[in-house]
Order: sequence, then C-alpha cells, then structure tokens
Amino acid sequence: MGEFELIRNFFAAAPCAQGGEGVALGIGDDCALLAVPPGEQLAISTDTLVAGVHFADPCDPFLLGQRSLAVAVSDLAAMGATPVAFTLALTLPTVTAEWLQAYARGLNQMAQSCGVALVGGDTTRGPLSLTMTVFGRVPGGLALTRSGAQPGDLLCVGGDLGNAAGALPLVLGQRTADASIAEPLLAHYWSPQPQLGLGQALRGKATSAMDISDGLLADCGHIALASKVGIEVEQERLPLSQSLVDFLGQADAQVAALSGGDDYVLVFTLPSVELPLLLADGWPIHVIGQVVTGQGVKLLDADGQDITPQTRGYQHFRESP
Amino acid sequence: MGEFELIRNFFAAAPCAQGGEGVALGIGDDCALLAVPPGEQLAISTDTLVAGVHFADPCDPFLLGQRSLAVAVSDLAAMGATPVAFTLALTLPTVTAEWLQAYARGLNQMAQSCGVALVGGDTTRGPLSLTMTVFGRVPGGLALTRSGAQPGDLLCVGGDLGNAAGALPLVLGQRTADASIAEPLLAHYWSPQPQLGLGQALRGKATSAMDISDGLLADCGHIALASKVGIEVEQERLPLSQSLVDFLGQADAQVAALSGGDDYVLVFTLPSVELPLLLADGWPIHVIGQVVTGQGVKLLDADGQDITPQTRGYQHFRESP
Repeated sequence: MGEFELIRNFFAAAPCAQGGEGVALGIGDDCALLAVPPGEQLAISTDTLVAGVHFADPCDPFLLGQRSLAVAVSDLAAMGATPVAFTLALTLPTVTAEWLQAYARGLNQMAQSCGVALVGGDTTRGPLSLTMTVFGRVPGGLALTRSGAQPGDLLCVGGDLGNAAGALPLVLGQRTADASIAEPLLAHYWSPQPQLGLGQALRGKATSAMDISDGLLADCGHIALASKVGIEVEQERLPLSQSLVDFLGQADAQVAALSGGDDYVLVFTLPSVELPLLLADGWPIHVIGQVVTGQGVKLLDADGQDITPQTRGYQHFRESP
Repeated sequence: MGEFELIRNFFAAAPCAQGGEGVALGIGDDCALLAVPPGEQLAISTDTLVAGVHFADPCDPFLLGQRSLAVAVSDLAAMGATPVAFTLALTLPTVTAEWLQAYARGLNQMAQSCGVALVGGDTTRGPLSLTMTVFGRVPGGLALTRSGAQPGDLLCVGGDLGNAAGALPLVLGQRTADASIAEPLLAHYWSPQPQLGLGQALRGKATSAMDISDGLLADCGHIALASKVGIEVEQERLPLSQSLVDFLGQADAQVAALSGGDDYVLVFTLPSVELPLLLADGWPIHVIGQVVTGQGVKLLDADGQDITPQTRGYQHFRESP
C-alpha cells in the first residue's frame, strides 16, 4: 500500500468521516451518495487555499484544519443552507504523521462544530494546497442569493468587522501585542465561526446575502452589481471590536473593517420591517447603511458626505487572490 | 478587477457554464444550487491532478481540459450515475490567455459530450493543479458500489485494457510510433470516454462496479476487499487493442492491461443470467474471470494455473500516486 493510500485510510477512519444525516454512502467507493429531502436543493461551494498565498507556510496544521473548513462552510451560511457534508482534496509535498494528525484534529473539531461529514476527496503529492467542496441543503426557492436587494432595504452585517485583517500582522509575525489583544484577533483569523444560524434565520427575510471574504466594500459591490442597485455604507456605524481599535487605532481599524478580507461575517440586505423580530430573537445584527437606486457602493461619513476611498491601498485589498 | 477575477468571469461565460437540467443556480453566487428529483440521490466524486505528477508539465492545455474532466466523470459512470454538474478549482502559476482559452475549449468539449454543467469553483495563483468535483444523480438504492460481488458472478470489463499505459511512453516522448499505432493510444490517454451509458445500463444488474484507474489487478483487489470475496482473472481473456499489441508486443501488452493505470474502463461483477440481454443490447462487455469464495485477486493462465505476479514492477504500478 502506498503512503497516499495510507493517508486516505487515515482520513476514512477520522471521526468526521463516520457519516451523518443525509449521507447515504461515505468515503471508500468511486463516489459518495447524498440524500436530499424532497423540496430541498443542494448548495455547493468550492474553495482552494494555497500555501504561501492564502496562508503562511509553514503554519500550525491544527489551526489550518479549522480555518480551511470554516472558510468553505461560511459560503453555506451565506446561502442560508444547513451543512451536510464536504470533500477534501489535499496536496502535500511530503507525508508527516504529526502534521496529518494535527491537521485532522483541527478539521474534526470544525466539522463537529458545523455538523458536516467528510464524504470523499483525494490525496496527492505536490506543493501544499487544499481544495474543500462543501454541501448543504436549503428549502427550494429560499436560498439567499446576491441578487434580490431592493432600494429601501437596510444594509446589515452579522458582527464585528476587520478582526481577521487586523490579525494578519500578528499571523505573519510582523507585529506583536499583549495576549489580551492578540488572542481574540488571532481566534477570528484561525477559527472563524461560519454564521450558520443567522443565515438560516434570514431565509425568507433577507433580500440578499453573502459572506465577507474580499472585504466589506468589495463584497457590497458584488451585491450591488448582482441586484442592480446602489449601496451606501455609513462609516460611523461599522461595528469594531475593542481589540481591533486598541491594536490599530480607530482610523486603521475602520480601514480594516472596510477593506480587509477574511471576516466571514454575513453582510445582507433586509426590509426594515423584518428587523425588530430578528433583533428580539437575539441575532447579532448591525445596520450599517442602506440600499438605494443607482449602482456601485458609496461610503458616507457622519454628515452623509461621500468619502468613498479611491486610493491604491483599497484597490489592492480588493484584488484577488 | 484582479486577473484571477477576470478568469472567473471567463469561465462563467464559457458554454459549459450556461446551466443544464438539474442546475437551479450556476456560477456567480456564494454557492451553486442543484435540484435532485424525488427518489434520486446525488453522487459526488473529487479528483486532483497535479502538474508533473499526474500529467507532463508543460502539456497541451486543450487535451488537459478534456482529460481532467473525463477522469472525474468516469467515477460517475462507475456508480451508474447520470452526470449533472461539476466544479473546477484551478491553480495556476501565471495567467496566459492562450493557455486558458485552449484549456476551456477542451473542457467544454468533454462537458458537452458528458452532459455536465460547470457550476462553480475557484481560481488561485500557485503551482499548476486542478481539482474537479463532479455531481450526478442516481435512483435511490441503485448506485453501483464495490461491495456487492457474490461468488459465482462473472468478472467483466467494458473494453480494451492497457491502452493508456501503453500510450505513456509516447506522451512522455520516450518512444515514437507510426501514426496508425500512436494516434489511437494517445486518444485513449488524452480523451478517455467515461462509460456512462454502460454504467447506467448496469444499474440493478451488476453486483459491483468501479472504473479502472489504478490498474485492473489493483482495482479488482478493491472490489474483492469491499465485497469480502476472491476474484480470478484469466489472462488469456483480457481484451487488448491491436494498436497496443503492435506497439508493445503480446507479453508487455498483457502487463499493461493487468497493471497499467488510467484505463477508465468499467470493471464489474455480473450474475451470469444478466449477461445475454446486455450483450444483445450491444454493450461492449468482455468476461475476463469470475468471483469466488475467499479473498484477494488471482491471475490464472490458460490452464487455470495461478500466475499471480509478485514482482516489484507490479507493486510499483499499484502504488499511488
């Protein structure tokens, strides 16, 4: 048996590969089989993370296991889907039992927290990269897309912005900070929590939604384009964590919130009539602007003046990868 | 807009990304949405191809486009599934319009031939590799797995074996041959035709099935293990193409048929009562052995003597990747 076949057996034996609701056949055959309840649709998303591009190389394999799955599952949250399963295509330059075990521990922990089962994948030799494909189910016609925002809707986000971008200099070892500041920021970066409950609560209520991965302004641009509307973001209303403000100062914290990527917090548009009940149910919803007629994204200051950044620094944040 | 976002737009505009039966939402949102008819299940398989490991680098991007999708769709054929959709995670060191256009042409051609729609994916910068995840639908309970073979069943394959392994020295430029020999072998390597019709015809009839990717003996070993049976392969009954015998000679052609990978021909087990009607329907079925009680795979000569190869050369073929 080759070493990569051993790895396949290793993942097949992992706790997260032992099936789950909706998994009719898991790892070990030519295909996995998923059962989709009548009236529901299957939501699918694929994300690739490349060492040295999307994460530092080397990095902690346990944290990478958590983050790689969370980033992918966040797309299910953005559609209002209930996670079911995922596949993992793992390309490794060398096989180290220690690395694999730590990676699998992180993966298992996030899989358990999100309720997804590993149902297949591939393990190959090559430069380190990971491709996750995630599957969720959503009632037919109720998936949250980017294309339904209407003028008059509120622009909302599901939590503090900019923490992951703020953490980046800590991740890369370019800066240090007291544990009280560094730990919450690093936790946001390495172990983002996909807003699955919020996404499901928004089904039939939000007119559009996505998760913030490219940065708030860029992602609002995606909604504006798909919905053929304009979006106004009010800078003073951006929710910022105390850790981020302590670490970067108010001005740079706002830049991180507007343009830093990797937040994996939901941004969505909501008819104002829907807001009170969602808030009463305890969902962490922050109104940060509104949908208007027109096109594109505007940033407004406290006086309603257009302060949309045009500088290269912002453009850079918006480019991908 | 970054260059990788341009690539995403390029693929979103490709003919194979324009939706199809069962695709409720295609490229462009956080997730794609697939509709699965009541009573059917979704079959899922993921394959990664790494440059320099699974294909020569550089290679013809048009041919790579065809082959990368065919290899993945072959797993749907092996389950008896009807193809619906696929995602493509493409990692590229540099962006060349010429390369992308040729790759997309090959991809489109194979997608059209297999009836699958591109519904999502990811494009990132890094060392060249491709991860395809394919989706098909199959009536509940009728998927062909590896685990149902019964003693007394016939062991069958769906066509000539060893052609892709025979083509490898041509692909790598280690040997040359007349076009009359080289062309059919190279066609098998670069443009394998997933046996989708045969797989669907075998639903409810074959007791186990898979596609030959690791080599006949190794893949029979997977069926034997999953079904808890023994399998006997009769060397004299292996179907060999004239091109392969002309190129390698009879003895090496048999080695390629037994142990060469990448055939993407179906191997399956069938109660003998099912054979006549399938043959009458014109399916290309070759009986090459039988299922017996016991375990493991035996190779038999024309006199029924056990000639199972134990040499390192065979083991090497069986190791992966």
